[in-house]
Amino acid sequence: MKIINSILKVILCTFLFIACNDTQKKENKVTSETSEVAQENILAGWADTPKNRIISWVEKVTDSSSSDFIPVKDRIAVFDNDGTLWPEQPAPTQLLYVLDFLKKEYPNRPEWENDAVISAAVQGDFGPLKEKGSAGIIEMVNKSYDSMSEDDFKESVRQWIDTTRIEKFDMTYKEAVYLPMLQLLDYLRAHNFQTFIVSGGGADFMRVWTDEVYGIPSNQVIGSYGDVEFSNEDGKATVYKKEGDIFFDDKEAKPEAIHRFIGKKPVFVGGNSDGDQAMMEYTSSSDYNTMCIILHHTDGEREYAYDTKTLSGHLETALQMAKEKNWLVIDMKEDFKQIFPD
Amino acid sequence: MKIINSILKVILCTFLFIACNDTQKKENKVTSETSEVAQENILAGWADTPKNRIISWVEKVTDSSSSDFIPVKDRIAVFDNDGTLWPEQPAPTQLLYVLDFLKKEYPNRPEWENDAVISAAVQGDFGPLKEKGSAGIIEMVNKSYDSMSEDDFKESVRQWIDTTRIEKFDMTYKEAVYLPMLQLLDYLRAHNFQTFIVSGGGADFMRVWTDEVYGIPSNQVIGSYGDVEFSNEDGKATVYKKEGDIFFDDKEAKPEAIHRFIGKKPVFVGGNSDGDQAMMEYTSSSDYNTMCIILHHTDGEREYAYDTKTLSGHLETALQMAKEKNWLVIDMKEDFKQIFPD
Repeated sequence: MKIINSILKVILCTFLFIACNDTQKKENKVTSETSEVAQENILAGWADTPKNRIISWVEKVTDSSSSDFIPVKDRIAVFDNDGTLWPEQPAPTQLLYVLDFLKKEYPNRPEWENDAVISAAVQGDFGPLKEKGSAGIIEMVNKSYDSMSEDDFKESVRQWIDTTRIEKFDMTYKEAVYLPMLQLLDYLRAHNFQTFIVSGGGADFMRVWTDEVYGIPSNQVIGSYGDVEFSNEDGKATVYKKEGDIFFDDKEAKPEAIHRFIGKKPVFVGGNSDGDQAMMEYTSSSDYNTMCIILHHTDGEREYAYDTKTLSGHLETALQMAKEKNWLVIDMKEDFKQIFPD
Repeated sequence: MKIINSILKVILCTFLFIACNDTQKKENKVTSETSEVAQENILAGWADTPKNRIISWVEKVTDSSSSDFIPVKDRIAVFDNDGTLWPEQPAPTQLLYVLDFLKKEYPNRPEWENDAVISAAVQGDFGPLKEKGSAGIIEMVNKSYDSMSEDDFKESVRQWIDTTRIEKFDMTYKEAVYLPMLQLLDYLRAHNFQTFIVSGGGADFMRVWTDEVYGIPSNQVIGSYGDVEFSNEDGKATVYKKEGDIFFDDKEAKPEAIHRFIGKKPVFVGGNSDGDQAMMEYTSSSDYNTMCIILHHTDGEREYAYDTKTLSGHLETALQMAKEKNWLVIDMKEDFKQIFPD
C-alpha cells in the first residue's frame, strides 16, 4: 500500500479550507466559427475549437479505413473526477462527507473523545489535524468507515450525497457536475469507448452514485482504496471496510492503478491537475494516436478559478507538458458554454 | 498485501508435482430426457439436468415480469480459472511458465547462481524450494517478472502460451479449455451478463490471452497481483513489474477482490475448489436469486479426477456447503458431453 505523504499534506491544507481562488485573466481564444461538423447537437456545451478537435480525433480513430484506427477493444477512456467531472473547491467533496460523518457520529462514539484530532475537528478546530499532518487525515478517513459493512457505507454515502446542498451553486453534489463533460462521456460511449474514472477519491465513495450521474458502472471506477475483510461468521457473508493503509490513487499511482485494474494503456484521458500528468504521459506513450485534455479552471464566477495557487487541483507542470505534447487545454471560461446542467 | 502462507504451501506441494489423481466413482445421475427447452444448441456440451437448471435460472432472472428479475447492470458473473475454465493438474499453468522462464533466463542471470532455490529448481531439484516453503514460491514468482516492463512480460507470456504443448492432451494451453464452460460464458453474455475471472492466477499472466480464449477483456480479469512502478525517466512512460509482496487472490481474498475491483456482489459464480467457497458464500448472500456451480473433477480419462486428495484444487468443505445451499455440482464425467473443443 502506498501513502504519498506529500500529496496527503496537500489534501490536509485543502481540508483546512486554505483555498486561494485567484481568478486568472486569460487571453481570449479565437474560436473557429466555421465548424466542419454538421451535427450541431454533439458536444453542444462546448465552444467550437475544442469541440472540433475532439470530434476530429474521434472520427479519425474510429474510422476503420484510417491508419489511426483503434479497435473497439482498445478504446479505453479514463477521467479524473475531482475538478474534471465535478468541482473540487473549496475542498474535495469526500472530505466534506468525512467531516459531516464524524460530526454526526461523534455523540455515539465516546472513544473518539480521546482522539485529539477528531474531537477538535468536529468542533471546527483543525489545529490538532494540522499538527498531525497526513497521519491525521488518514486517521479521520479511516474512522469514517472502519468496521462498516459495504452496504452500510453505501447507504451512509447515499443519504449524504442525495441531500447535502452546495451553497454556492444551490445544487446537490450529484447535480453540480460539468455538463460538457457529461456530453463528452456520452459522445465517447456512442463511439464504443469504455469510460473509466481514475481518481484520488475513494472508489467506494464514488461507486455509490457514478452510474446514476455519469453512466459509469462500479467496475469502471478506480480510486483510492483501503483494507477490507470478508466475514461470514454471523451467517451474513459481507465485506467490511477496515482502518489501515490506504492506496492513494494520484500522480504515479494512477498509471499503476490503470495497469492493475484495466490492464492496458488508455487512448484518451481527461484531467485537470498535476496529479493527472503521469497517466497522461502513460497514455501519450501508447502506439495509438491518443488524446489528452486538461480542464483549466478559469471561471471564478460560474465555478472557481485556480491553478498554481491552490493545493487541491494544483496545475503547473502538466500545463507546461501540455504545450510540449500538444495536449488539449480547455479554458473553462471560454470553452464551456454552460458549466452545470439546468 | 496479503500472503496466505497455507495456500502457498498448497501450491508449493502441487508445484512439486505431488498430485494424487484418485479417480472417484460417482453414482450415475438420472438426467431428464424431457427438456422443456427447445433451443437444442444452447449449452450443447452439457448433459440435460445441469443444462436445464442453468437455463431455467437464466430465463427466470432475465424475465422482467418475474419477481426474480435482475437488472442488466447487476448481472455480474464471476468465474475461477484454474480447474474451472481450464485444467490445473498436475500444477497450475502459471507455475509451469515460471519454471520454464527461470530455466530459459538462467544463463543470462549469473546472480541467480547464488540463489539456492532457483539454481536447484532449474535443474529439476526441488529440495531447497520445498525446504523454504511459501517464501521460495514467492521468490520464484517474483524473479519471473521483476523489473520487466508490462509489454515485455506480456510478450514473454504470449510466446510461451502460444507454443507450449500439453503432452497429455496434445494441445496448447489455449486450446485445452473446457468447451461446456466456453458455451456457458457465451450463453450468459447473450443474456447481458458481464463475465469476470476471479482467480488465484496472476492477473497479468491471464490478461495476455483471456480475451482471445474466453472473450473476457483485461479489465474483467481479477487475479493475484504484485507491486508495479511507473517510470518515465528515459522518456518511455511505462509500468514495470517489481518483486515484492503479492496479493494472493484465493479464499477470503476473492470476495475482497470482488469488492475492490467490481464493487458489487455477483449473482453467478463458477468455481471448483474450496478456494472458491468464500466468493460463493458472498454471492449466495445477495438479495437476488443467485446461482453457484462447482465443477467436480471426476473424469480421470478425459481430464483428471481429484477432489480431497490433491492440494491444488482441493475440494471438500465447498462440496459439503453445496448440499446445504443447493449449489449446482457438476460431475464432469457425467455432465460434460465433451471436455475440450475439437
